[in-house]
Amino acid sequence: MRHLMTPLDFSVEELNKLLCLANDIEQHRDKYAHACAGKKLATLFYEPSTRTRLSFEAAMLNLGGQVLGFSSADSSSAAKGESVSDTIRVISCYADICAMRHPKEGAPLVASQKSNIPVINAGDGGHQHPTQTLTDLLTIHQLKGRLGNLTIGLCGDLKFGRTVHSLIRALVRYENVKFILISPEELKVPSYIREDVLEKNHIEYQEVERLEDALPSLDILYMTRVQKERFFNEEDYIRMKDFYILNKAKMELAPEDMLVLHPLPRVNEIATEVDDDPRAAYFKQAQYGVYVRMALILTLLEVDVTC
Amino acid sequence: MRHLMTPLDFSVEELNKLLCLANDIEQHRDKYAHACAGKKLATLFYEPSTRTRLSFEAAMLNLGGQVLGFSSADSSSAAKGESVSDTIRVISCYADICAMRHPKEGAPLVASQKSNIPVINAGDGGHQHPTQTLTDLLTIHQLKGRLGNLTIGLCGDLKFGRTVHSLIRALVRYENVKFILISPEELKVPSYIREDVLEKNHIEYQEVERLEDALPSLDILYMTRVQKERFFNEEDYIRMKDFYILNKAKMELAPEDMLVLHPLPRVNEIATEVDDDPRAAYFKQAQYGVYVRMALILTLLEVDVTC
Amino acid sequence: MRHLMTPLDFSVEELNKLLCLANDIEQHRDKYAHACAGKKLATLFYEPSTRTRLSFEAAMLNLGGQVLGFSSADSSSAAKGESVSDTIRVISCYADICAMRHPKEGAPLVASQKSNIPVINAGDGGHQHPTQTLTDLLTIHQLKGRLGNLTIGLCGDLKFGRTVHSLIRALVRYENVKFILISPEELKVPSYIREDVLEKNHIEYQEVERLEDALPSLDILYMTRVQKERFFNEEDYIRMKDFYILNKAKMELAPEDMLVLHPLPRVNEIATEVDDDPRAAYFKQAQYGVYVRMALILTLLEVDVTC
Repeated sequence: MRHLMTPLDFSVEELNKLLCLANDIEQHRDKYAHACAGKKLATLFYEPSTRTRLSFEAAMLNLGGQVLGFSSADSSSAAKGESVSDTIRVISCYADICAMRHPKEGAPLVASQKSNIPVINAGDGGHQHPTQTLTDLLTIHQLKGRLGNLTIGLCGDLKFGRTVHSLIRALVRYENVKFILISPEELKVPSYIREDVLEKNHIEYQEVERLEDALPSLDILYMTRVQKERFFNEEDYIRMKDFYILNKAKMELAPEDMLVLHPLPRVNEIATEVDDDPRAAYFKQAQYGVYVRMALILTLLEVDVTC
Repeated sequence: MRHLMTPLDFSVEELNKLLCLANDIEQHRDKYAHACAGKKLATLFYEPSTRTRLSFEAAMLNLGGQVLGFSSADSSSAAKGESVSDTIRVISCYADICAMRHPKEGAPLVASQKSNIPVINAGDGGHQHPTQTLTDLLTIHQLKGRLGNLTIGLCGDLKFGRTVHSLIRALVRYENVKFILISPEELKVPSYIREDVLEKNHIEYQEVERLEDALPSLDILYMTRVQKERFFNEEDYIRMKDFYILNKAKMELAPEDMLVLHPLPRVNEIATEVDDDPRAAYFKQAQYGVYVRMALILTLLEVDVTC
Repeated sequence: MRHLMTPLDFSVEELNKLLCLANDIEQHRDKYAHACAGKKLATLFYEPSTRTRLSFEAAMLNLGGQVLGFSSADSSSAAKGESVSDTIRVISCYADICAMRHPKEGAPLVASQKSNIPVINAGDGGHQHPTQTLTDLLTIHQLKGRLGNLTIGLCGDLKFGRTVHSLIRALVRYENVKFILISPEELKVPSYIREDVLEKNHIEYQEVERLEDALPSLDILYMTRVQKERFFNEEDYIRMKDFYILNKAKMELAPEDMLVLHPLPRVNEIATEVDDDPRAAYFKQAQYGVYVRMALILTLLEVDVTC
């Protein structure tokens, strides 16, 4: 039995298979409409995350399966002091697979060690959120046709953003990938990414402060939010905040086939005027999130599908 | 693609079709048991409303469809500052149709403008609650056999009660409808209903202070609650509160075929001793609420049904 | 139409039938996969109880039925002052059967009196929790092969523990059942159990203070938690707390075929080192909880099954 704890749990080859399955799901949805009939997904969300939870639920329902669970810790046994290890053993009696979101790093891992059913880490604190990374990879794969030979701009809070770190780790496994890291000084990628991932793998990268400087050479722009509280001083924030807001004017600097991704929810880091630009891919990304979760559920449940 | 924002979105003719479909559903439930197989309803309830939410869920499940969603804003992405426009675009990737309840007037309308799936307004603040009005109309239609030629008593808080306003607007479109408006002075229907709806359409109406005075001539009595806080002074409240409580004694003044409706929940404005009276229709109304929502979902999803 | 309010609502004969059905469900799950197709269970949880709620939901989904409901009172109409009697009449329009959890004793009973659908008491305050007792009985029946001729140790808080009281009442109906009641002085079974149930029915029982003294002669050990707040003084608590913690060392005193049961959640009254002991049956118990609820739903809905 297999779990999904980190985006790197799958080898490149396994990932190719998963993306291929997700592609087949997109092309032939009806073929999968009953693939999980009689199976149940438990969504154990110890902290609310509506988007992620509903994406998992939509995925399971699309496969003809059913869903049960909880959407916040108040309504769970956690309030009564039960350990995650005990909870998962009980949930193993109720469901066939489980997606767990937990504010504590490592909780899904602890659960997986005692579980009789596959456990998917649906986000554990600031640590990992592997299905977001799978979503990002599928989006790039489907819309660009490849995961190698890409110049990827990562913009915003690169210091604390776990989705950005995971995406870097996932992409360095492909050929000829270059990064442009766009952030204020205070929010640059930490050394355990720059040194231990990028430099160690001899990946070409560049660090810039202004989005405008990066845009012309990008295949992909991955936007994230810059929170005011992250800045050291008000002055810096005021000077730089507009650097990290994508608008129509900045989009004119970008190549015609550049894609804009965003893990969502967005607040104001992408102006709504960009939404109608054909390069805006962030809502399509939400759709790919459903497809990749469908592929993941099928894979972990070892449902026999030919693709 | 069509949405439902207000009770008047449907023309009288379209409404007839909807009520006819709801009638067919009541008569032949099995015929519709798989009509929405493979479809998903998203229930986006930014404020709790158990009755309305469960009525929608029951409707979709009765049609063989599935349901996902949230039941309060705390467990939604709204907490993270996402706009309703962004949320609906993501939900469009997860579901085929959506019912949205929101404390802010107009939120469902804003959502519908960016949505790729039909949006049903399931109540927006004190503004609109169109499926309640559809429920009221179906109940009258099924139990009275007609929507015209009726004398309707509306009792209670006629100033703030949105269900009452909507019902008036909906019923003035039928022939020979008369209203008796039963309320304390402070809670009379506002002028934008009295002048702009009733008088403009040359609708016969009467305003009375005591329920007893109205009862003998009614075909329908629509009860709503009078909240103590709405009165200007304690004295008035004490003098009048019993005027608006329907009990067995008052029911003796009413015609034998008068129907009592109430949008529920009731607190004490209808004594429980009335529940066993064959004229009490408020619990049947809850059942009709499910049938009319089934008809609505089928209509907005353009499911091909012959009726 | 029948409801389930207390564990004694079923006669011994009816209970045998229920356990026999649950056994058949365990043996032939596929046979029941569509038994409740088109039926809906409403889970009305006025206080959170994730484990119980999910067990009911899993049961209904396993039968091919559907589920709707709420998981805490905040998201229910109760907040608007609606009575349980009114709520159940509305829910009767939405679902075919209902499981109700309520902090107030007797609330499910009140509901059942006005309900048009079977109501299952899923726990009402400190009063009753009949499906836990059914779970306990099925677990003993399946793993021991009998409900009579047993020596049962009940350990922990025997004063306030409703599961323990219910289990005693249920088991005294079988032949040759003996109890060993293991608790501190302050938490001994109350006289309405000791005198009115045990002594009145001439049941052999013994009261001991230390788990070690009971273990060698037990067929079943039913563990419950001892809360620190229940003790009269700190000294007693410190002196005795370890008496009621089951660990590997104590398990060595127990017969080879003794079973350990626990209603869960556990906190620390069973050391996790016991979990791998083949005699630990508390997680299996959670599985039996699903089977017995499946049997119960089928029985109350009068679904025609041959077993």
